[in-house]
Amino acid sequence: MSLHNGRPYLAIPGPSVMPDRVLQAMHQPSPNIYYGELVDMMGDLVKDLRSVACLPDGHVAIYITNGHGTWEAALANTVAPGERVLVLATGTFGEWWANTARAMGINVDLLNFGLQDTIDPDRVADHLRADTAHEIKAVLMVHVDTATSIRNDVPAIRAAIDGVNHPALFMVDCVASMGCDRFEMQNWGADVAIAASQKGLMTPAGMGFVYFNDKAHEARKGLERVSPNWDWTPRAFPENFYRYFGGTPPTHHLFGLREALNMIVHEEGLENVWARHAKLAETIWAAVDAWGTGGEIACNIAPRHLRSHAVTTIRMQSPNATALRDWVSDKAGITLGISMGLADPGDPAWHGIFRIGHMGHVNAHMIMGVLGCIQAGMSALKIPYGDGALDAAAAVIAQA
Amino acid sequence: MSLHNGRPYLAIPGPSVMPDRVLQAMHQPSPNIYYGELVDMMGDLVKDLRSVACLPDGHVAIYITNGHGTWEAALANTVAPGERVLVLATGTFGEWWANTARAMGINVDLLNFGLQDTIDPDRVADHLRADTAHEIKAVLMVHVDTATSIRNDVPAIRAAIDGVNHPALFMVDCVASMGCDRFEMQNWGADVAIAASQKGLMTPAGMGFVYFNDKAHEARKGLERVSPNWDWTPRAFPENFYRYFGGTPPTHHLFGLREALNMIVHEEGLENVWARHAKLAETIWAAVDAWGTGGEIACNIAPRHLRSHAVTTIRMQSPNATALRDWVSDKAGITLGISMGLADPGDPAWHGIFRIGHMGHVNAHMIMGVLGCIQAGMSALKIPYGDGALDAAAAVIAQA
Amino acid sequence: MSLHNGRPYLAIPGPSVMPDRVLQAMHQPSPNIYYGELVDMMGDLVKDLRSVACLPDGHVAIYITNGHGTWEAALANTVAPGERVLVLATGTFGEWWANTARAMGINVDLLNFGLQDTIDPDRVADHLRADTAHEIKAVLMVHVDTATSIRNDVPAIRAAIDGVNHPALFMVDCVASMGCDRFEMQNWGADVAIAASQKGLMTPAGMGFVYFNDKAHEARKGLERVSPNWDWTPRAFPENFYRYFGGTPPTHHLFGLREALNMIVHEEGLENVWARHAKLAETIWAAVDAWGTGGEIACNIAPRHLRSHAVTTIRMQSPNATALRDWVSDKAGITLGISMGLADPGDPAWHGIFRIGHMGHVNAHMIMGVLGCIQAGMSALKIPYGDGALDAAAAVIAQA
Amino acid sequence: MSLHNGRPYLAIPGPSVMPDRVLQAMHQPSPNIYYGELVDMMGDLVKDLRSVACLPDGHVAIYITNGHGTWEAALANTVAPGERVLVLATGTFGEWWANTARAMGINVDLLNFGLQDTIDPDRVADHLRADTAHEIKAVLMVHVDTATSIRNDVPAIRAAIDGVNHPALFMVDCVASMGCDRFEMQNWGADVAIAASQKGLMTPAGMGFVYFNDKAHEARKGLERVSPNWDWTPRAFPENFYRYFGGTPPTHHLFGLREALNMIVHEEGLENVWARHAKLAETIWAAVDAWGTGGEIACNIAPRHLRSHAVTTIRMQSPNATALRDWVSDKAGITLGISMGLADPGDPAWHGIFRIGHMGHVNAHMIMGVLGCIQAGMSALKIPYGDGALDAAAAVIAQA
Repeated sequence: MSLHNGRPYLAIPGPSVMPDRVLQAMHQPSPNIYYGELVDMMGDLVKDLRSVACLPDGHVAIYITNGHGTWEAALANTVAPGERVLVLATGTFGEWWANTARAMGINVDLLNFGLQDTIDPDRVADHLRADTAHEIKAVLMVHVDTATSIRNDVPAIRAAIDGVNHPALFMVDCVASMGCDRFEMQNWGADVAIAASQKGLMTPAGMGFVYFNDKAHEARKGLERVSPNWDWTPRAFPENFYRYFGGTPPTHHLFGLREALNMIVHEEGLENVWARHAKLAETIWAAVDAWGTGGEIACNIAPRHLRSHAVTTIRMQSPNATALRDWVSDKAGITLGISMGLADPGDPAWHGIFRIGHMGHVNAHMIMGVLGCIQAGMSALKIPYGDGALDAAAAVIAQA
Repeated sequence: MSLHNGRPYLAIPGPSVMPDRVLQAMHQPSPNIYYGELVDMMGDLVKDLRSVACLPDGHVAIYITNGHGTWEAALANTVAPGERVLVLATGTFGEWWANTARAMGINVDLLNFGLQDTIDPDRVADHLRADTAHEIKAVLMVHVDTATSIRNDVPAIRAAIDGVNHPALFMVDCVASMGCDRFEMQNWGADVAIAASQKGLMTPAGMGFVYFNDKAHEARKGLERVSPNWDWTPRAFPENFYRYFGGTPPTHHLFGLREALNMIVHEEGLENVWARHAKLAETIWAAVDAWGTGGEIACNIAPRHLRSHAVTTIRMQSPNATALRDWVSDKAGITLGISMGLADPGDPAWHGIFRIGHMGHVNAHMIMGVLGCIQAGMSALKIPYGDGALDAAAAVIAQA
Repeated sequence: MSLHNGRPYLAIPGPSVMPDRVLQAMHQPSPNIYYGELVDMMGDLVKDLRSVACLPDGHVAIYITNGHGTWEAALANTVAPGERVLVLATGTFGEWWANTARAMGINVDLLNFGLQDTIDPDRVADHLRADTAHEIKAVLMVHVDTATSIRNDVPAIRAAIDGVNHPALFMVDCVASMGCDRFEMQNWGADVAIAASQKGLMTPAGMGFVYFNDKAHEARKGLERVSPNWDWTPRAFPENFYRYFGGTPPTHHLFGLREALNMIVHEEGLENVWARHAKLAETIWAAVDAWGTGGEIACNIAPRHLRSHAVTTIRMQSPNATALRDWVSDKAGITLGISMGLADPGDPAWHGIFRIGHMGHVNAHMIMGVLGCIQAGMSALKIPYGDGALDAAAAVIAQA
Repeated sequence: MSLHNGRPYLAIPGPSVMPDRVLQAMHQPSPNIYYGELVDMMGDLVKDLRSVACLPDGHVAIYITNGHGTWEAALANTVAPGERVLVLATGTFGEWWANTARAMGINVDLLNFGLQDTIDPDRVADHLRADTAHEIKAVLMVHVDTATSIRNDVPAIRAAIDGVNHPALFMVDCVASMGCDRFEMQNWGADVAIAASQKGLMTPAGMGFVYFNDKAHEARKGLERVSPNWDWTPRAFPENFYRYFGGTPPTHHLFGLREALNMIVHEEGLENVWARHAKLAETIWAAVDAWGTGGEIACNIAPRHLRSHAVTTIRMQSPNATALRDWVSDKAGITLGISMGLADPGDPAWHGIFRIGHMGHVNAHMIMGVLGCIQAGMSALKIPYGDGALDAAAAVIAQA
């Protein structure tokens, strides 16, 4: 029998669950794009977008694109083909950003820290120290890699760069962390940061954001040419409304984003949003850790301080994760995330990995429901697990 | 801190969680009410409404009203002021139906079976046997009383009436059970049954349904006068579309109901809907029973075979239920149901009772989320509870 | 070929075009019905409902019903079976209200003023003067009869009643006029007024409103019994939220009505709403009058001061109205209203009548579109019409 | 007074009026992006997208971008920096495409045919004939320029290219014409065509489409490098769902586009859609031509066979267009399009131009409403105009 006929629950690491209010805000006629509400709201929208990144003094360009597009946008404004960047990879998304750079004609130095560990600042410092000619134009890292669910230490890498006095721009991919995990762009010294709408920012996929400071903009000015679609200059410093978007604005997404930012910035408050994500992540870890005691299940990232608050990648010793995902979908109405990059889809090990997304519009009810049904699924599928997981999870919620 | 910022979850015993598809179906322009889609769909709609009540050969009248209105509608078509009915009460809603009858000028014999027990067929038989003049025109019972969460045995009462050869109409309030708990109007021998849109039928409040068979319609014909709004004749046997609703149709509700019936009748299937409700109810009971071991919490109705599959009334020894409801609302985004009729709101005992609605568009994810957060709340509030409840609940889900 | 594929336009006299904002307001999850937003908003909602009727000092009961239901509600609270009322009919709706009264066991004196004329106050006065025993408990009139599109003079009838010192209650059906045509309940001396949601109040069908003053409430107190569904006492003077609606509230309709009242009362302003309806009605009349010069088309009501601002019934000499309605539907995306009560549907004359609804959420663009397409249809169907109609209509708009 | 309080009507040349069904289709939870409905529907979606362009044998890449982005996408896949293209300009959009090419490092030969005339195929042939070295890699033209409302003759330019045996790719901007004006990509011999979602395709802004044939794809293969975001190879020949969009799919836009294509391709039919646009355009021209007789208003494009069926640019002799736009907005609820590129916004002549969008979800009712209100506005503002315009427009509708 099936117990899935109710509100389906999407627990993948993006797109996340869209708030009803955001969907409602998007359900309206096409607006006047010359003047009126849409045009008037842009000033505050940009301000609120900056506040989500803790960037009081910098700039942000809005792109009609997805997260992958912002990788290209960030590089197109800062690094010319033939120049060199250093990519610090801790999962698929770091590797893909490197691939994007290569495909743009950029030379890539790749330091890969594996799939279960964080970036080693010393290796970064060593690598940069060796670049005495300062050929490396930018250091690229992913704050939270959605594949591995690692959460890297941004200030530590900033310190490593500063420690060797290297002038490279410091660029951080915050697609999976923005609005979920604490990220203080200005205080932490990132020069460029990228984000997208469909995760912590609770708006359907289709918008990407590139934040930058004056140092990064100097790099932009030094480039011979940036294509019109990617040039952040008119988007961040628009002469008129039309220039924000290099043409027709993404009208309905803007209405949705406006509502999402109302919820994050003006209602719950960013600090509270971060605290909620931290507590709900801890709830999930409490369950997984308990299941893993004598069981076969574990968080991909062992040290708690390196785990994302937005996504949790889970490993099982046996290749039962696909069966488990299918079970909770058929029986309980939950869609869990697949493995990405931790094993080849043809490899049995691929079937030992799944992910839980817990980003954006998530509350205790949703998370306890996911954990309860995962345990039911493991039980039904005879996957061994340790005792007390749900009690442990509830105990974390109880501390709220 | 708060962990409620995500999709709010309404766990009250009606209105229930509306499916997104139903809300979408209602989000459309006002239709042509003379001909076209709305008019054309009525035949199938009525057929599907009948099938939800397992009434292949009877009739149904659609009213623009709520559940209370259907009490009045059912009586207005069958019993004249000054006539007499027997009401079998097992909770607030039975008592209120009796009040409605009295307010309509009908004389009421009330057999009250308390707040934690079911109807005793022998007492019913005795009472009817004593009515040798057959003054009692109708026997009224509530299938599932939303206040106590009792689920009464409809065939047993039919048998009691038949056992004494009493000609009274047999009328059953299915507002809380229709589309949740098995109810077979024709097989079980109910002459009249009432339901409303906002519970198992997953459509916003504002429509009520009165089902009846030919015997009941004979009673209608015998009445001197039924007011135009309540007369079921034109509504069940309409000459034209306009007569279905005694005037302007409830356009948007009809669109919503159409979608809800698609889901129940044509997609999941009524037997599967009942089975899902049964299993999810069992899940809740498993948790409550475990919490109650050495704890202070228990289902209001002790025997499992008398418990509703749509709502569960829970009693705590101490008056902590209000605090618990507040906690799960503030911390977890869940609204639990208040006590209704089991104690006076001014009485401390009122604060010892709460209800969980689990009717309509509910799945395993939603239920495990509610149970996990209730336990978190009891823990936070230092309400003692027995061990293993969440594991027990997950174990029930695992059997799906 | 067809030119209808665009936004369909419903130009029937109710249900009217629902504002997108109202539909959006209804597109939300079921709310908490114990406390919170829904409960908190009732005070202001009732106040705004009263302000739409210009009833600062009276009361209003909200019913889950349609317009026909409010006929019954108004009578159930004021007149007992066996008592007598005077109905002043100027179209189908007046006659139907009389039928409702009769079906409730009330004796009806009917003064019928035909289908193209208004109420004659002298005949009213004569009739009441003859009732020396004051057996007539209430005088019932329809402000705007949706069938004929007459707009009757409410103060004139009040004056007629007062002129003969008759104590009957004065009850006015404002279903088609509320929020469209000026109606000042308190100043004009109506004791009871009824309205419904789906016309000028721009909310889907399913809610009705009965306004009353203290004199009417005295009549209510004098009745032996009013059925629970209709009794306005708990609805207008509720002890708690639950009593407003005699059970489960019409949650989604309340959200929709709240938004509609925001638009009417707090944004556009009632005086401006009335002025807009008056000007748009005048626009339609300008066109019809021009078409009628040498043509075969005319407003059913000749004197302008007796025409409704919310609906216009139009007569053609030949039975081409059905063909015209079909043409504008197929070719232009417009649904016009059918004849109601001015001829029998089996009578060819029925096909000589149609109606245009112009109530609620209507603007100049909508009206000019309707007129332009009606003329196109008449042209296509070789229905003769006079020149200059569209220019005349535009000239009225130009004066705005 | 204002007569605008009703459904606001957006008559700008894009974004166009979104069908309620499209907005509804977008109002749903984030979907599973790994498998299920969204993934399964892509095959048919791509097929239907191709059928709208009459491209049975070619390819289409879907981009998350606006129309301007597709200019860049088309060029990025076909022309390298330093190479040369010929741009044929008949308005702002042609000039902007040229600017885009230049900003990408491409050398541009620009033939400008002014703001009121079409492309001269002889000049194109002469220019290409002179390019004996075949340095020109592509000829770029705009089918319908939204600024001037010219509709250029695509086959004529194909013939000109073929007449001189020039191997350049032939690229056509169909942003404003796709789904409105007849465009047969394959039969007419375009190698590349671009379109966007927000005009004839009736889906909110945020998606762009690049169609191409095998010849164009050969050019793609010859390029050293195409950036990942623009490379049409994975998008048009995806290994898996994820590759269609270079990352996260534009989930909600895809749902909207699916519904819009249902309406265009499977319900109304593309030929009927084109015929409807043609007839409604003719309706507008009939009015403007009549107003212009002795008046001061005229279509920017004099020859009817060169006028777009999707947008009409209108010139007034005096600078009253801004006042007229304001009037119809305030009084009638209509937003007309501003001038774009026909005069500098600082120039008084700018205020003599406005545009009417009539693309996508438009019917006779909408168009007659716009025309009626424009005439009302001219009348109110004392702008002289010729007689009989609205009658003339209605007469065109009458022929439908």
